[in-house]
Amino acid sequence: MKTPRIDNLQYANWSEKVFRQMREGGVDAVHVTIAYHENFRETVLNVEAFNRWFEQYPDLIFQGKYASDVKLAQETGRTAIFFGFQNPSPIEDDIGLVEIWHTLGARFMQLTYNNQSLLATGCYEATDSGITRMGREVVSEMNRVGMVIDMSHSGERSTMDAIEISRRPIAITHANPSFWHPALRNKSDTVLKALGETGGMLGFSMYPHHLKDGSDCTVESFAQAIAKTADLMGAENLGIGSDLCQDQPDSVVTWMRNGRWTKTIDYGEGSASAAGFPDQPSWFHDSRDFGNIEAALHKVGFSDSEVGGIMGGNWLRFYDRSFKPEG
Amino acid sequence: MKTPRIDNLQYANWSEKVFRQMREGGVDAVHVTIAYHENFRETVLNVEAFNRWFEQYPDLIFQGKYASDVKLAQETGRTAIFFGFQNPSPIEDDIGLVEIWHTLGARFMQLTYNNQSLLATGCYEATDSGITRMGREVVSEMNRVGMVIDMSHSGERSTMDAIEISRRPIAITHANPSFWHPALRNKSDTVLKALGETGGMLGFSMYPHHLKDGSDCTVESFAQAIAKTADLMGAENLGIGSDLCQDQPDSVVTWMRNGRWTKTIDYGEGSASAAGFPDQPSWFHDSRDFGNIEAALHKVGFSDSEVGGIMGGNWLRFYDRSFKPEG
Repeated sequence: MKTPRIDNLQYANWSEKVFRQMREGGVDAVHVTIAYHENFRETVLNVEAFNRWFEQYPDLIFQGKYASDVKLAQETGRTAIFFGFQNPSPIEDDIGLVEIWHTLGARFMQLTYNNQSLLATGCYEATDSGITRMGREVVSEMNRVGMVIDMSHSGERSTMDAIEISRRPIAITHANPSFWHPALRNKSDTVLKALGETGGMLGFSMYPHHLKDGSDCTVESFAQAIAKTADLMGAENLGIGSDLCQDQPDSVVTWMRNGRWTKTIDYGEGSASAAGFPDQPSWFHDSRDFGNIEAALHKVGFSDSEVGGIMGGNWLRFYDRSFKPEG
Repeated sequence: MKTPRIDNLQYANWSEKVFRQMREGGVDAVHVTIAYHENFRETVLNVEAFNRWFEQYPDLIFQGKYASDVKLAQETGRTAIFFGFQNPSPIEDDIGLVEIWHTLGARFMQLTYNNQSLLATGCYEATDSGITRMGREVVSEMNRVGMVIDMSHSGERSTMDAIEISRRPIAITHANPSFWHPALRNKSDTVLKALGETGGMLGFSMYPHHLKDGSDCTVESFAQAIAKTADLMGAENLGIGSDLCQDQPDSVVTWMRNGRWTKTIDYGEGSASAAGFPDQPSWFHDSRDFGNIEAALHKVGFSDSEVGGIMGGNWLRFYDRSFKPEG
């Protein structure tokens, strides 16, 4: 079986067009965000919407629950859709919902989305107080049932805490190294080294605010950043988490940034004069463009097997050891 | 593999004691009620409580999801617990919750509990208007995903409608024949014949209000009723659904009868002077007593294979053809 192609973070305005582009791009599995600020019941409604798509487009997509579903996707020419949350809001204040969500298929959960949560501190807070009392309990429960701790939007101390506390490798599903582009959302060498040493995964983001030179970033620069990160934490711990927000209206980025937590407008990585979604780089508009990244990785000197790993094989190995209950 | 012993309806005040008695009684699978009037979120809390029990007593019980789990229970000396609802309240007004609940393991859902619901009419209403518009849609969705339509507490017309509309055999998980004891909750010959002709199942109840002579009912009379029902609808369509409400305080029967739908007190099958749970018959106090029924079935003339079927084999066959999605 060929090494699979996996994009470990998308949040599109889902449609038949988007699902068909996944097939055209040879994407075997996608981790999709089904909650930014939604509470339990609202997130269940988002699962219901996906259930309708699964029923409507059975030849294009199906729900992925375990690593074996990536193989099934390859064998049947479809894309396996894995659910995840960018915020712990779907578990509200109830640790029992971790197992409920695992049963419903959630495989990744961020402990924070930019702000302080019940579990940890987000990367936009002035003070990062680390993993909370409830956070420690929830990390342990996520480890038990097989839900991956995702620290993409967390602060440095909270992220280091999570790496240390978690009994299983964690993930930063969509962020880039600070050494390449020093954004609040990108990660320090300290975090990346600790992540790699514990078998954790970094998914490289193509969201323009995370890229050097933003929308004008070149694919060569992107591939060079990946090569330098491989030197730091090992090519086997790297993958793609495109953060593709395809076909979304600007109201959605406002929702992502503001949820229901503020009455004034927070522009996040944008600004009042550039409040909407930034333009995608020319070499990555949708799921059909993964070939551009693959070619650039070859050019920058990665071996065939390293490229295969970064384009999906590494995520597959990580899925295989992460999604089942402990023991 | 020996024919399994299955009790297709219990609602105990769950405890280690109750689970150990299931093992002592050789009960391989139990369909347990996890909702009477609970809404979606409240029923999820009830699943969470069971998840704790599964975690706490892994050597006694585990969650059953498919017929194969009954075999697993037999092989590992445990009891498989299958979830069900006595009311459609856990799906609220949202048909998308049928599939969500199937994923969480719900395998039986009553369309009504005594009263009119959004789906059908209960057996205590003055007028039975049959399956509603939403009811037809939900029956079809239950058929699609593999959730059994249970009409134990429904009116006659609604029950006949469900038998006719459903693409898959339905169940009356816990009720007895009216010809033996004419209670509102028991079922007419017309219903029982239609049920049997479509491959549906009747689970015999040992709840005293459903028994001839109530708490004084003899096991011989109970076995004779089963024999006469076998003549009417076939022994292969009969099983046990004890309706055992072990160790429950009387406040629970008040909740079952009144939920949140009335401010006055409804006594259901009881009365103001006998408002609590009735005494169990002497031959069935808990899961250790199934041998008494098995012996009485032999005495009343059933063959060994018929007894095996009624004590669990018939439910197992029904599970096998009912719990997986259509197609």
